[in-house]
Amino acid sequence: MRKIRLTIQYDGTGYSGWQIQENEPTIQGEMEKALFTVTGEQIRIMGASRTDAGVHALEQVAGFETASTLENDVITRALNANLPHDIRVINACECPDDFHPRYSARHKIYSYLISHTSAYSVFLRRYSWNLPYTLKYDDMKEAAGFLLGTHDYSSFRASGCSSKNPVRSIESIDITVLSSVDFISFHFDGPAIKISIRARSFLRHMVRNIIGTLVETGRGKISPLKIKEILTSKDRCLAGQTAPACGLFLEKIDY
Amino acid sequence: MRKIRLTIQYDGTGYSGWQIQENEPTIQGEMEKALFTVTGEQIRIMGASRTDAGVHALEQVAGFETASTLENDVITRALNANLPHDIRVINACECPDDFHPRYSARHKIYSYLISHTSAYSVFLRRYSWNLPYTLKYDDMKEAAGFLLGTHDYSSFRASGCSSKNPVRSIESIDITVLSSVDFISFHFDGPAIKISIRARSFLRHMVRNIIGTLVETGRGKISPLKIKEILTSKDRCLAGQTAPACGLFLEKIDY
Repeated sequence: MRKIRLTIQYDGTGYSGWQIQENEPTIQGEMEKALFTVTGEQIRIMGASRTDAGVHALEQVAGFETASTLENDVITRALNANLPHDIRVINACECPDDFHPRYSARHKIYSYLISHTSAYSVFLRRYSWNLPYTLKYDDMKEAAGFLLGTHDYSSFRASGCSSKNPVRSIESIDITVLSSVDFISFHFDGPAIKISIRARSFLRHMVRNIIGTLVETGRGKISPLKIKEILTSKDRCLAGQTAPACGLFLEKIDY
Repeated sequence: MRKIRLTIQYDGTGYSGWQIQENEPTIQGEMEKALFTVTGEQIRIMGASRTDAGVHALEQVAGFETASTLENDVITRALNANLPHDIRVINACECPDDFHPRYSARHKIYSYLISHTSAYSVFLRRYSWNLPYTLKYDDMKEAAGFLLGTHDYSSFRASGCSSKNPVRSIESIDITVLSSVDFISFHFDGPAIKISIRARSFLRHMVRNIIGTLVETGRGKISPLKIKEILTSKDRCLAGQTAPACGLFLEKIDY
């Protein structure tokens, strides 16, 4: 048996998330079907992040064990020949036995896109949260500062979260304001915002709940200082809404 | 009665093109449904370009007559509230009675995207033709030069084309090689190519047949000089394949 590490990209729009579910299209489900076709083995593939329904991935990492002796390039090509077009294996490589896609990760970066262009675009819509009003960026940045560090993030945790420990460490939150947006090689007037959050791991819906709360701050509904209070309250009801899945990208996982 | 001119954007992936068809989702069909809901009138809307199934539009122009006295901004908002999310009205304005979306157009620009990145992306795929081999750009540019001007373009015309006159005038073909591609605010390594073709009007599949032929030139299957011969032969069989619809965007119409 050998262990293979895959880098996978997907447009999550049509899927009920990473994790396999009966009668629902999932990334893990599609991967395991393709692995069966290619290797003839019933393989369980483990993803670094269990992305939610509708969430995209630029670089998801996954690992599996196989008895197959196919070369890594052949595995990549054969999987891609058997995967739907909105899921692609970018890379396959051998990895040590003790490599674990989730537990070996040093940190993950999730990025969230908000388009609040007046020149609203159907092309940005599929991959961003369209908010047709002004946001106070400075307030959002100030609020984000209070969320850095090691905290109990219960206020930003979905009710169905299975993690025993609500403590996580956010290493950085970068808020970049874009005056315009390039979609492939077409230009759209902005503004738009990209918010990137880096941590070793996250609670369920944590990124989207943080984004939703930062947006409330940007709209002036929650003051930046109030964020501190929301965090210490450990009360999900005080934080903002869960931002829609379509704007969220699992951008990178570092090992 | 007054005449309204609309600028419309759409992601054509889920539609059988602009032109209304029974039992098929079309842009015109969705527009007329929304117009009926908003005005209570059975309105025939006329598009400047009858884009094919799967072709996108950054700025399609359409016109219709209505007895409605709703303000233009209200028409825009009301139509968008009743349209699917992959079709958006960007602008509505009053126009002269003699304005005709198709015949009044001075020229139209269609742009086509080819991604031939090694770092293949699911996000570019939906909006470009992915070609996993090297293309000789200089040969493509040389070949494009022979297609400029006024010619009988029968060699690049689909069999079902209803136009009586196969003569058209191509004003420009711009081939831009991109070393990288920005998808919203994510960066992908290139190369990619954007090919923009400007003419007053086009024959059916003319842009996609030209793109398909230029690609054969880029691959070395057709020499640039041969393009001249293909053009004068008026024989569709000599030209290249029809490039896939997903890479094509109706970019702009000038009046």
